[in-house]
Amino acid sequence: MFDPTQHGLSRDFRLTKFSTLRGCGSKIPQDVLDRLLRGVYSEQFAKEEQSDRTVDDKQSGSDSAEGVGIGLDSSVIPLKHDLHLVQTVDFFYPLIDDPYMLGRIALANVVSDVYAVGALEIDEIKLVCSAPTEFSDEERDIVVPIIIKGFQDAAAESKSRVKIGSIALNPWCIIGGIATAVCHKSELIMPYYAQVGDSLVLTKPLGTQLATNAFIWMTEESDNWKKLTDKLSKSDIEKTYVIAMESMSRLNKSGAELMHKFKAHAATDVTGFGLFGHADNLAKFQKESVDFEIHTLPIIKNVVQIAELLGRSAKLLAGKAVETSGGLLISLPAENAQGFCEEYEAVSGHAAWIVGRVVAGSRTVKMSSNPTIISAE
Amino acid sequence: MFDPTQHGLSRDFRLTKFSTLRGCGSKIPQDVLDRLLRGVYSEQFAKEEQSDRTVDDKQSGSDSAEGVGIGLDSSVIPLKHDLHLVQTVDFFYPLIDDPYMLGRIALANVVSDVYAVGALEIDEIKLVCSAPTEFSDEERDIVVPIIIKGFQDAAAESKSRVKIGSIALNPWCIIGGIATAVCHKSELIMPYYAQVGDSLVLTKPLGTQLATNAFIWMTEESDNWKKLTDKLSKSDIEKTYVIAMESMSRLNKSGAELMHKFKAHAATDVTGFGLFGHADNLAKFQKESVDFEIHTLPIIKNVVQIAELLGRSAKLLAGKAVETSGGLLISLPAENAQGFCEEYEAVSGHAAWIVGRVVAGSRTVKMSSNPTIISAE
Repeated sequence: MFDPTQHGLSRDFRLTKFSTLRGCGSKIPQDVLDRLLRGVYSEQFAKEEQSDRTVDDKQSGSDSAEGVGIGLDSSVIPLKHDLHLVQTVDFFYPLIDDPYMLGRIALANVVSDVYAVGALEIDEIKLVCSAPTEFSDEERDIVVPIIIKGFQDAAAESKSRVKIGSIALNPWCIIGGIATAVCHKSELIMPYYAQVGDSLVLTKPLGTQLATNAFIWMTEESDNWKKLTDKLSKSDIEKTYVIAMESMSRLNKSGAELMHKFKAHAATDVTGFGLFGHADNLAKFQKESVDFEIHTLPIIKNVVQIAELLGRSAKLLAGKAVETSGGLLISLPAENAQGFCEEYEAVSGHAAWIVGRVVAGSRTVKMSSNPTIISAE
Repeated sequence: MFDPTQHGLSRDFRLTKFSTLRGCGSKIPQDVLDRLLRGVYSEQFAKEEQSDRTVDDKQSGSDSAEGVGIGLDSSVIPLKHDLHLVQTVDFFYPLIDDPYMLGRIALANVVSDVYAVGALEIDEIKLVCSAPTEFSDEERDIVVPIIIKGFQDAAAESKSRVKIGSIALNPWCIIGGIATAVCHKSELIMPYYAQVGDSLVLTKPLGTQLATNAFIWMTEESDNWKKLTDKLSKSDIEKTYVIAMESMSRLNKSGAELMHKFKAHAATDVTGFGLFGHADNLAKFQKESVDFEIHTLPIIKNVVQIAELLGRSAKLLAGKAVETSGGLLISLPAENAQGFCEEYEAVSGHAAWIVGRVVAGSRTVKMSSNPTIISAE
């Protein structure tokens, strides 16, 4: 656990205070984005993009956003020599108080979009970071390097190089980056070939937001914490937090490698729009007329109980909870799904789950009203 | 001039209120950055980068930042097939109240780094934008699309395609983006071949920050405005503002095209660190042991007088005023400099100036203590 005093900070230093919005929930909701973007996307480019040029150029049912790619964060652009430019940008605000882990999670979160299209070698990652205007000079000089260190260490694990792109002053702490890969077409798995009969696999559990918030409420002894204390101990909340931290900071690279081995047809990563939102974006995007049926929700241990005690379980059980640095949701041949999960566990030390299947339909998501809940440790 | 009421906003709506720091001055100063980055840059990558892999991997005199590239925003990374990945990220906060022009300037500002290395075709530009948390829903729905429209229109002029990368909530309005080009080596002008005897040319005038601030002070009738009214009329300030707006929103693409024609040896764009700061970064970076002597400062009309009336002329006349979306500073053979300036004026309708020369030295900038000041209209 992060102890501010060990770094020369005062005992009550809390990074999460430098943002009132925690996690990817700070993104503008997609319906508002649709409205904001209506009419501003130039027709010239929209026409070009209809010709299958980019990963994210298809947003059925949303003409205004044609080609804008608000659903899938990663863009894939064809270049010369059968090469493609894969690029994503993502940033968020502190959702935890540990600056080192925040840096690691930010890195895992930004590269995740690139891994989701099967690209394994990332040519460059630029860090985008802000120092809050309310930091004292001392706090800034201690905290920002720790964040950057976490980001760099995770980048080294991914074997990617990092550039410090921009460090600015801002009222809130911003952390994020840009990941870029230039790949041969054969290295990519374009995310629109899901087939009827496919299984859907998820490589990380859900519930990161409640898991991290519960830990913060506990340290702050807030009203929400008092609602939990009848049923959950400090040790329970700490375990839940540790599971979430491991999950959010785990790279999706192993998942991407196995996507190739097990012949995945399509994938997305799960972040700010939640499992349902990202599945829905992926479904809209498919070449075949398919639906995604989701029948199972792996959720971080104790998070269902936390949600129930707070009266927030409906959103969680609808797959709509906001996630940060979530797993890959992968559509792959049913006969390969079990093998994928077994090998994922062998390689990463953590479970992956079959959470649904692909059926004939109209590019929507069907969420089971009574999903199987798996407690993930 | 932007009239908020014409867009359904209240008469006193001021975009600049959604940031207390205007322009690129919100960047963390380079000496602080150096300190923040000390020790966090992993040695493994630092060693790799010493092998001339990237544009910005050389920061003589700053061991800690070796390879980090804090001076030159653009990075150039070799790929397969003699291709290079050129990428830059830049964002800032509102320095003017006109959202459309803010979008145009943000685009010109971000692509400028790519043009500075001679790359003319940009494969993708991602917009990064935030809606201030203090915006009402109505303000957000009116203002954000206007900003995006300005950004898109300028991108269309540059013949680049734009993706909406990320729109988030944040206390301040953020506007910026990421520009990416994948180019053959022959398309690039690497920024470290300045030769003794070269001339230094600058393609836009200095003083954008004071020019835009003076206009805001006038509209707000602030104390600073009262210091100006003895010598300068509203019409003077408006003219100054219009010159600055044109300059900041002008693309550096023509300059980059002429860099090829007139065989430039090195270039940088001039933004947040001012003419002196960017010249200094460029100098540190040179293969030859050269100094850059700067003898001439083209400054937007009336800005010297504004600076004098405010007691701020020392910084301006030292070339250290913060700029937003400034011009290219180009080192090129002396015999080509006049031709460059003439053709730049013919193509763009605006002057470029010979502002200095390259002499034998130790990779520093020598600023004339009594520079020739040119009033730019």
